[in-house]
Amino acid sequence: MQLKAQLGGDEGKHVFVLKTAKGTRDYNPKQMAIREKVFNIIISCFKRHGAETIDTPVFELKETLTGKYGEDSKLIYDLKDQGGELLSLRYDLTVPFARYLAMNKITNIKRYHIAKVYRRDNPAMTRGRYREFYQCDFDIAGQYDAMIPDAECLKIVYEILNELDLGDFHIKVNDRRILDGMFAVCGVPGEKFRTICSTVDKLDKMAWEDVKKEMVNEKGLSEDVADRIGEYVSMQGGQDLAERLLQDPKLSQNKQACAGLTDMKLLFSYLELFQVTDKVVFDLSLARGLDYYTGVIYEAILSQTIPAPAEQNGADEAGVSVGSVAGGGRYDGLVGMFDPKGRKVPCVGVSIGIERIFSIMEQKAETSSEKVRTTETQVLVASAQKNLLEERLKLTSELWNAGIKVEVLYKKNPKLLSQLQHCEETGIPLVAILGEQELKDGVVKLRNVASREEVRLISDQIKIKKLFKNH
Amino acid sequence: MQLKAQLGGDEGKHVFVLKTAKGTRDYNPKQMAIREKVFNIIISCFKRHGAETIDTPVFELKETLTGKYGEDSKLIYDLKDQGGELLSLRYDLTVPFARYLAMNKITNIKRYHIAKVYRRDNPAMTRGRYREFYQCDFDIAGQYDAMIPDAECLKIVYEILNELDLGDFHIKVNDRRILDGMFAVCGVPGEKFRTICSTVDKLDKMAWEDVKKEMVNEKGLSEDVADRIGEYVSMQGGQDLAERLLQDPKLSQNKQACAGLTDMKLLFSYLELFQVTDKVVFDLSLARGLDYYTGVIYEAILSQTIPAPAEQNGADEAGVSVGSVAGGGRYDGLVGMFDPKGRKVPCVGVSIGIERIFSIMEQKAETSSEKVRTTETQVLVASAQKNLLEERLKLTSELWNAGIKVEVLYKKNPKLLSQLQHCEETGIPLVAILGEQELKDGVVKLRNVASREEVRLISDQIKIKKLFKNH
Repeated sequence: MQLKAQLGGDEGKHVFVLKTAKGTRDYNPKQMAIREKVFNIIISCFKRHGAETIDTPVFELKETLTGKYGEDSKLIYDLKDQGGELLSLRYDLTVPFARYLAMNKITNIKRYHIAKVYRRDNPAMTRGRYREFYQCDFDIAGQYDAMIPDAECLKIVYEILNELDLGDFHIKVNDRRILDGMFAVCGVPGEKFRTICSTVDKLDKMAWEDVKKEMVNEKGLSEDVADRIGEYVSMQGGQDLAERLLQDPKLSQNKQACAGLTDMKLLFSYLELFQVTDKVVFDLSLARGLDYYTGVIYEAILSQTIPAPAEQNGADEAGVSVGSVAGGGRYDGLVGMFDPKGRKVPCVGVSIGIERIFSIMEQKAETSSEKVRTTETQVLVASAQKNLLEERLKLTSELWNAGIKVEVLYKKNPKLLSQLQHCEETGIPLVAILGEQELKDGVVKLRNVASREEVRLISDQIKIKKLFKNH
Repeated sequence: MQLKAQLGGDEGKHVFVLKTAKGTRDYNPKQMAIREKVFNIIISCFKRHGAETIDTPVFELKETLTGKYGEDSKLIYDLKDQGGELLSLRYDLTVPFARYLAMNKITNIKRYHIAKVYRRDNPAMTRGRYREFYQCDFDIAGQYDAMIPDAECLKIVYEILNELDLGDFHIKVNDRRILDGMFAVCGVPGEKFRTICSTVDKLDKMAWEDVKKEMVNEKGLSEDVADRIGEYVSMQGGQDLAERLLQDPKLSQNKQACAGLTDMKLLFSYLELFQVTDKVVFDLSLARGLDYYTGVIYEAILSQTIPAPAEQNGADEAGVSVGSVAGGGRYDGLVGMFDPKGRKVPCVGVSIGIERIFSIMEQKAETSSEKVRTTETQVLVASAQKNLLEERLKLTSELWNAGIKVEVLYKKNPKLLSQLQHCEETGIPLVAILGEQELKDGVVKLRNVASREEVRLISDQIKIKKLFKNH
């Protein structure tokens, strides 16, 4: 790295634009502290469920991403052709995961991956979305007995949302096979399944009447067909609904629907064992945007919708509804697309809407009386008199060596007041104050910054270590 | 995301190139486990020293990076102009840090930043280096009393290398002002200081005779001047050497050198208080490659050089010598380059050669008898007989709810042997075995996988929780 040209005297010639790239942002220490707290809860859950983690490069061969995202492909960031391969920034974590499995011939893995993805979202449609944002994916790949890994994904969503303490929530569940079967028995032509599915997906934001209009006027369904769909998609329930629909004179004649409904029954029996049925609803209106799902789909929604802040973003990674904070499903065909012989690896996964969760946590932090700490420092080593720098540094070092989180001001003779102010500003709970008298007596005065209570301690490392264990 | 085209029947038409982009790699779960272990040690140290963390976008405005890296600028990855701003992937974390400080008018911060950076390294010069690799930077910005933050950076390097347990090491220290003063009194013309500095920097890999040849034949110094430099750069010592050089008839006449030597003395007195002088050497041959240093510079070197593996990479982020695993120094001019008014923010920092450390740890793991675990699972819930899926799932859920890390095989009727094999393969230490008799008796049989010892436990959640606390 050479700065010669600019350090060598022609400073000021270049006027730098002091900004980050459009649609991106820095995370300041406070945002990082919140981010870390959220990640810790989520990662602990993934680990409790025995998940491994992997990482993939931030860019892939352009070809790897080609043909995976339909018309959204225009949102992919390409790298400049500087000679060599054509590269693109990753658009999500699912395609790199599928590429990883196929490339390494992995047929069984339970992995999570938390990383940034990139989308050149059209400014007109952004609504404050970021072009660089986190995704947080958990997936189980492998040929297993029906619905067991699927149930674990739902258990994970349940645990994470409980622990993040975001208020009440519910998880909608459906199955692509039930949707397809339903479309078939309602009289939707096969080639319109996916596009009608997209229209149904809008039910979380639009009234049925408007959804119906789109089906009839834009998608060309007859009113009759639309009304039949309308009857089904208004249904919500649990295992009982699956049982009832298995008796439905029309649906029961459709093979796909029966397979989906039988699995839905099984799923609910496992969810019962996992003690999560209080939050899970079998909802025939849930469709999910992505085309690659082949079986169960789900989406978690916060009941208490917090108004979307300006910086709300990346919501679509977990679905599109306002309160949606997690979503996923089964996609048994994606890995096969990367395998030269088309060998399939069944997968089921969930994506936690981490950016939305960050926003909510940041908002909560702002309205909370408790200040977010950006450091974990337990004690500041301070002095009340001048000329005690050496003593301060020595005690600081001893405390570091004992594993205690300590700061010391980088001044020879800081004022006691400014040392105490530093504690108050950054939330350091304790201050160890050195003075001539204390040094003579071989003690350290330890003050609780908030309560101003003081104790005098023999400055013995082991005792100090014990003392700080609880802070 | 739409996969219609490919899921809809024309699979196999596209032949995907199953590879990652040139110079990049996936991290598999084993590599991630090692990476996490290393990061935990390093981050704990940074936090012990009261550091905050920030994050910046993976790309910056091209302009932000322009003119910062001299001829290495050709290694910067540019993004394709897709309409809008011209963007480049970050080349290091220091320039984004300086941009962040100037942009937010921050004059005081102690922060760490661990993230990937990107360099289109020329294949001919790669020696197996990656084009995407981690940097791990710790920096203290602010106007403080001399050498106190500088000493803390060295204390941090000392603590991290001790805790990573990479074998014996030493930390070379020098000062750019001492080097410049030395060049001046030896008779090097001012405009050749930086280029001669680069030549001196090669002393860790080349014999003095060859370095001298380069100085004389390529850089145009006279033999006399080179020999005078040769005398100085062979000197090594501690505080005593700084004192001795302050008496040196020539150096003592140079203002720059005196300032550097006086600070060096002060630095050593602080390092004494921090109890790290056993590993720190004042070495006049240390020059460091980067041009932006303005004061103290340092580099940590492992004594026991482990042969560089094929995937060794990113070494230059922490210096160039073979065993170099950390490096840094004071750079008081960089932030000012970004400030419209040129306001300076003094900075001192250290970069941990994390990729080199990963390589060493991976090599150690491969030769070690202890297997690297990629999950933290404490117990597998298994069954000895058929038809116990429900009971397995129920117990698994109870253990998850109690915060215990548990796995269960996703099979209705797995064989006991395959369940035990899974434990052995993945290092799960305990297996809870359910059987008809145990269920009747209301107990769980818990087996230590390695020792095969078994205990029977009343299947009571609280007791189970206590039991697992120690695993």
